Amino acid sequence: MAKVPYKTYLTEEEMPKQWYNVRADMKEQHDPMLNPGTLQPLKTEDLYPIFCEELCKQEMDTTTRYFDIPEEVLDYYRTFRPSPLIRAYHLEKALDTPAKIYFKFEGNNTSGSHKLNAAAAMAYYAKEQGLSSLTTETGAGQWGTALAMACSHFGLDLTVFMVKVSFNQKPFRKAVMETFGSKIIPSPSDTTEVGRAILAKDPNTGGSLGCAISEAIELSMKDGKCRYALGSVLNQVLLSQSIIGLESKLAMEKIDEYPDMVIGCAGGGSNLGGLMAPFMQDKLTGKANPRIIAVEPASCPSLTRGKYAYDFCDTGRITPLAKMYTLGSDFIPSANHAGGLRYHGMSPILAKLYHDGYMEAISVEQNKVFESAVMFAKKEQILPAPESAHAIYGAIQEALKCKESGEAKTILFGLTGTGYFDMNAYMQYLEGTMTDYVPSEADLQQGFDGLPNVN
Amino acid sequence: MAKVPYKTYLTEEEMPKQWYNVRADMKEQHDPMLNPGTLQPLKTEDLYPIFCEELCKQEMDTTTRYFDIPEEVLDYYRTFRPSPLIRAYHLEKALDTPAKIYFKFEGNNTSGSHKLNAAAAMAYYAKEQGLSSLTTETGAGQWGTALAMACSHFGLDLTVFMVKVSFNQKPFRKAVMETFGSKIIPSPSDTTEVGRAILAKDPNTGGSLGCAISEAIELSMKDGKCRYALGSVLNQVLLSQSIIGLESKLAMEKIDEYPDMVIGCAGGGSNLGGLMAPFMQDKLTGKANPRIIAVEPASCPSLTRGKYAYDFCDTGRITPLAKMYTLGSDFIPSANHAGGLRYHGMSPILAKLYHDGYMEAISVEQNKVFESAVMFAKKEQILPAPESAHAIYGAIQEALKCKESGEAKTILFGLTGTGYFDMNAYMQYLEGTMTDYVPSEADLQQGFDGLPNVN
Repeated sequence: MAKVPYKTYLTEEEMPKQWYNVRADMKEQHDPMLNPGTLQPLKTEDLYPIFCEELCKQEMDTTTRYFDIPEEVLDYYRTFRPSPLIRAYHLEKALDTPAKIYFKFEGNNTSGSHKLNAAAAMAYYAKEQGLSSLTTETGAGQWGTALAMACSHFGLDLTVFMVKVSFNQKPFRKAVMETFGSKIIPSPSDTTEVGRAILAKDPNTGGSLGCAISEAIELSMKDGKCRYALGSVLNQVLLSQSIIGLESKLAMEKIDEYPDMVIGCAGGGSNLGGLMAPFMQDKLTGKANPRIIAVEPASCPSLTRGKYAYDFCDTGRITPLAKMYTLGSDFIPSANHAGGLRYHGMSPILAKLYHDGYMEAISVEQNKVFESAVMFAKKEQILPAPESAHAIYGAIQEALKCKESGEAKTILFGLTGTGYFDMNAYMQYLEGTMTDYVPSEADLQQGFDGLPNVN
Repeated sequence: MAKVPYKTYLTEEEMPKQWYNVRADMKEQHDPMLNPGTLQPLKTEDLYPIFCEELCKQEMDTTTRYFDIPEEVLDYYRTFRPSPLIRAYHLEKALDTPAKIYFKFEGNNTSGSHKLNAAAAMAYYAKEQGLSSLTTETGAGQWGTALAMACSHFGLDLTVFMVKVSFNQKPFRKAVMETFGSKIIPSPSDTTEVGRAILAKDPNTGGSLGCAISEAIELSMKDGKCRYALGSVLNQVLLSQSIIGLESKLAMEKIDEYPDMVIGCAGGGSNLGGLMAPFMQDKLTGKANPRIIAVEPASCPSLTRGKYAYDFCDTGRITPLAKMYTLGSDFIPSANHAGGLRYHGMSPILAKLYHDGYMEAISVEQNKVFESAVMFAKKEQILPAPESAHAIYGAIQEALKCKESGEAKTILFGLTGTGYFDMNAYMQYLEGTMTDYVPSEADLQQGFDGLPNVN
């Protein structure tokens, strides 16, 4: 057999033309989102003031298995997709493992991550609905950059609330978003009621995604031609991110491979939810049984140490409630935590699949993540984002188990992005000043105490 | 006819297995390099103390048309090559031009530029010769990062002298090089004699490539197992960079295209020399007659305003002398100049071809470069390096001429890299604080006055 190439690309014709909705194959659906006012199950129309109508429909749809990707979105995808499936030959050699390690690399675009897949859909549907602007939040800056790019392409204004700790650590991320014409506000800010309330309580807070979400929603509600866009957690996001998994599966078919395990980092779940989609389909329909493994930061361990409960999606408690694994919407991770993956909750779809035993999860401390990142950079010559390095850590652990057992398993992991804007964190790691924060039981209990009493 | 895809990739099998040496097809060779001590034409052995022996041979070879790319270099190339040939559909539409605009995108790797093509060869040959370390200089940081990556891959130590103005503007570039295990020293430094001499003359200098080169060579000469590596200007660099043009030509053949003009930014000439190589071959052998256009910064205009004369390749005057277009090795461009392309001279091969009428050259001011960069980013969704944006500017000008004339010409330009580490400059441009420096005749005369008296 010919040697598998380093990189496998689909042609533009081979690129998937539809997104896959994993809910159509789930035996049980996650519990419905609840209206925060009435605590009754949410109706599609309840979401119209927040999101574009088409996205609201996608959000609630549990039966449509495939959604056509609109032609203009496909056209936009072609500027940065298909992304390569890469065989990590050099990493395999360095680990001296019989395992075959593949990764789907989503970082070869200016946003530096997979987030552009969902941003494209949101900007397109907003334009189709005749809106003039969007608001959003961003943590590490990848989502904000992605939406800034997509809004620039589709001709929409964008205001981004950027978690203050990232705003200060990453001035260049802000500059990239501004290059694409967006307006950036550090969160919490005094431009919204919820921001002012949070600042009054803790003027020195570094902010959190949950808080930035509240601010972005508040601003979007003030203007009928504006809506809010969220880059993770939601069902609509997992739908458009399914392109990652669909491309991965097709590329693996081209080289006669199928993964024994699929590994992704997990913050809100957008990457892992997209990567695992068609493999989870095989699992749900009995066609195959790959392991699906989430890797999360020990500092924000929603799957491994959170509660499966109804919770607000934001700190300001203005969003609907979702049944998910959560650390409580009041939980704010340590400011020294480097990467993204700072969200208190987890995609309801992933949460349900995890709860029902279709997925595994592990957590890892920050220094180990960067150790994996530097090793990967040296061997595969790609500088990974700290988020992505969680998945690298997971893949290395599994490859080392293969070395011990002698099994030549096939590992697929998601390399969600590049770390060019994370060099402050790399410098800390290289200088030995990076600390590992792991919340105590008491820290976690504080978050759980704030959970709404609807379970 | 089917629509040309956005991106055309070669398969790994289709990737060129040989580099092309344009000198084998040149009617006249450039004047020989001169030994700085004797002012006699340099012998291959004279270079052995500076560069690896194989590279010295390549440097002097005017007859071998094709050089086999070593298997280990090919293997390394596969981690970041082939690079895509991209049709700039969105830019064409925005310009409303009948021109077909293609660009070869060399920035999709962690070094962020084409420099890795030559770095791979240098690190490989150093390892083959049994050396333990290399030294080099870097301006914008792309070359240093590229060589840091290649040295990490081939297992060599590396010391990088980084032009001080870039060292201060780009701490993250330093961090990337350190991640790959290299040692970085701001230049001029007090670690070398030449550095101390320059600092004594002007303690506040921002440095220059010419000065960093002197320091790197001085350090390399102190250790028999160490050599120096230079990322541009040299014939050996143009040879390995020919992979850019060879891939471009093959990719264009796949879609039945051939360029009417080939446009590249020009600092020392490594990118344009590589990109144009097989097209220049067609020109030299009478097979075709594409225009070859160099675009250089108005602040460092070696081709458009320099002298064709013998000059030192470095500020410290310890290198051999080359016949080239030069602003004088004492010329130090304004510290406010954003990108790379700060070198006082120009590849002797390119200089000769330009002198003999095979090439054109234009120069452009910094603000116009960034205007083109921002337009390109918004339309093609890739944030270009300031260096690359010179070529974008050139391509846009030619596309606008096509709009006027109604001609559907085919334009190929080199997008050498990404601008993720150049956000300080983007911020200056967006804030309107970027200034255009164009040297006066008197400024230039100062540089010319320092030319060695051997012409």
